[in-house]
Amino acid sequence: MKLATLRDGTRDGALVVVRPDGRAFTPAREVARTLQAALDSWETTSPRLRTLSEALASGSIRGEPLDIHRLAAPLPRAYEWVDGSAYLNHVRLVRKARGAEVPPTLETDPLVYQGGSGVLLGPTDDLVLKDAAWGMDFESEVCVVLGDVPLGSKAGAAAPYIRLLMLCNDVSLRNLIPAELAKGFGFFQGKPSTAFSPFALTPDELGGAWRDGRLDLRLKTWLNGKLVGDTDAGPEMHFSFLQLLEHVAKTRAFTAGTILGSGTVSNADRARGVSCLAEQRMVETIETGSPKTPFLQAEDVVEIDMFGADGVSLFGRIQQKVVAG
Amino acid sequence: MKLATLRDGTRDGALVVVRPDGRAFTPAREVARTLQAALDSWETTSPRLRTLSEALASGSIRGEPLDIHRLAAPLPRAYEWVDGSAYLNHVRLVRKARGAEVPPTLETDPLVYQGGSGVLLGPTDDLVLKDAAWGMDFESEVCVVLGDVPLGSKAGAAAPYIRLLMLCNDVSLRNLIPAELAKGFGFFQGKPSTAFSPFALTPDELGGAWRDGRLDLRLKTWLNGKLVGDTDAGPEMHFSFLQLLEHVAKTRAFTAGTILGSGTVSNADRARGVSCLAEQRMVETIETGSPKTPFLQAEDVVEIDMFGADGVSLFGRIQQKVVAG
Repeated sequence: MKLATLRDGTRDGALVVVRPDGRAFTPAREVARTLQAALDSWETTSPRLRTLSEALASGSIRGEPLDIHRLAAPLPRAYEWVDGSAYLNHVRLVRKARGAEVPPTLETDPLVYQGGSGVLLGPTDDLVLKDAAWGMDFESEVCVVLGDVPLGSKAGAAAPYIRLLMLCNDVSLRNLIPAELAKGFGFFQGKPSTAFSPFALTPDELGGAWRDGRLDLRLKTWLNGKLVGDTDAGPEMHFSFLQLLEHVAKTRAFTAGTILGSGTVSNADRARGVSCLAEQRMVETIETGSPKTPFLQAEDVVEIDMFGADGVSLFGRIQQKVVAG
Repeated sequence: MKLATLRDGTRDGALVVVRPDGRAFTPAREVARTLQAALDSWETTSPRLRTLSEALASGSIRGEPLDIHRLAAPLPRAYEWVDGSAYLNHVRLVRKARGAEVPPTLETDPLVYQGGSGVLLGPTDDLVLKDAAWGMDFESEVCVVLGDVPLGSKAGAAAPYIRLLMLCNDVSLRNLIPAELAKGFGFFQGKPSTAFSPFALTPDELGGAWRDGRLDLRLKTWLNGKLVGDTDAGPEMHFSFLQLLEHVAKTRAFTAGTILGSGTVSNADRARGVSCLAEQRMVETIETGSPKTPFLQAEDVVEIDMFGADGVSLFGRIQQKVVAG
């Protein structure tokens, strides 16, 4: 099923169930007021949400027309946002761009960072750029929403903890990152609020494309209407979501509603394009000696989407305009 | 006023108001079911909570006997846990212990990291040690709970965003941290769940000891009943909570209920002792060539407390036993 959160003036919005074609929804308030509340009691809420979803799909509930501009992030605030960096081509290119070394454990020890999760952007929220010199960049990613994950969970038993999948734009401020990382405490100021896709999908909605903890579909990214990335999200995800989950659960438990990200989707084949501008700039530097593509500027528009075999947008489209702040 | 969260089988517990002496409480469910709900509508809930607090203090409400073993963390799960490292003596000693350089911007650019916030420990919860070789350490800190903080907030206007103060034990796994930091993404596996004091206090409860965004009182830490730290939390906090708030809000907004920490309280005067074992071990190394004090072992007990002028424990006592996991 497809779930979404309708803005209703409250902090967490109202949970709705979305029709498979993404064009209509029905309120789910009788099951759970918010997506977090649904996740908190998933064993009891998910069968009831599924009943609504089936009624909407069959037409026995007509539904209301859906306008994605009325949607918040599926979780407008989440208890944790943990982001991996599982596409090694991305790590190699971005570190090269920063003049930084790739960790020697790159292929055996996942990279993950703890992101801010208290203020998450909806799919059409503006990207507020306070200072263009900060070097704002998009990062197109796949992410999962977890159920309660016990301390010490292993990859082999992790699949049931993955409740939902979403897309996200994990915005970066590239020119603030080197100074932050030099201090040794992570990206802090370099990571403003992350934006999420209109819909969160249960894994079964993805059929055979969701397997072994990877989503084997193309992730498309447009900048100002031009397709800049058409990257395969599946095969080059070096650590699957199940492996990332084992990694993060080594020393901590996680509460239902935790979001775990893949990192920027990236392919070694340059013909697939990019899911962030830092990669594009590094490729330009390798090919011509210097970057040509600027970081995001006011009025730029970023779009991120992924389609099923029938050509329908699976998660709805992230469509964000950059505005001077 | 003093607030606390009583375990009641729900994920977020039940908000209670605590008598000034910490020995009795009254339920606050008619005002707000949880502390997060109170913070979400603080303008309307705080006057009503204050009325309960005054009735409890005056004896017009008798209250129920309070047992801190029944308390969860004031926020059993929070939307963000952002921890500074504002006591420079701690930064200098711990980096020395790791053989790492102090950042050149140490005195001008605050260190902060994003911690996990979805599973927070109560004041008497066990510290589960899965592997003694990980080098578990306590870190005694002061922290504040924020209201909604707009993007770009400045220190000079930040005081009203500080709703509550607490103490915490920001547990570290010292022997996992170097490998995590070497990857450049922060402490991730090196930081298991953080534990919090029984009570969260409004700033007015601290009188003149709370000024200019610093809490000028002694923070006491005991290991197995022996006082190991009696550190001044005030003067050597190089960056105040107001300055830390400006720093973190440079590129992001924060939602009500975000927790912001001071970092391990530390004084240059060695007679004040330590608020973590890493410092003790570094002092031993400087004085005798090698560390003598082991990291935490199963059955160790850590206690953290702070007293007002009248000798009453302000926040209640963190009392945690280390248990093999």
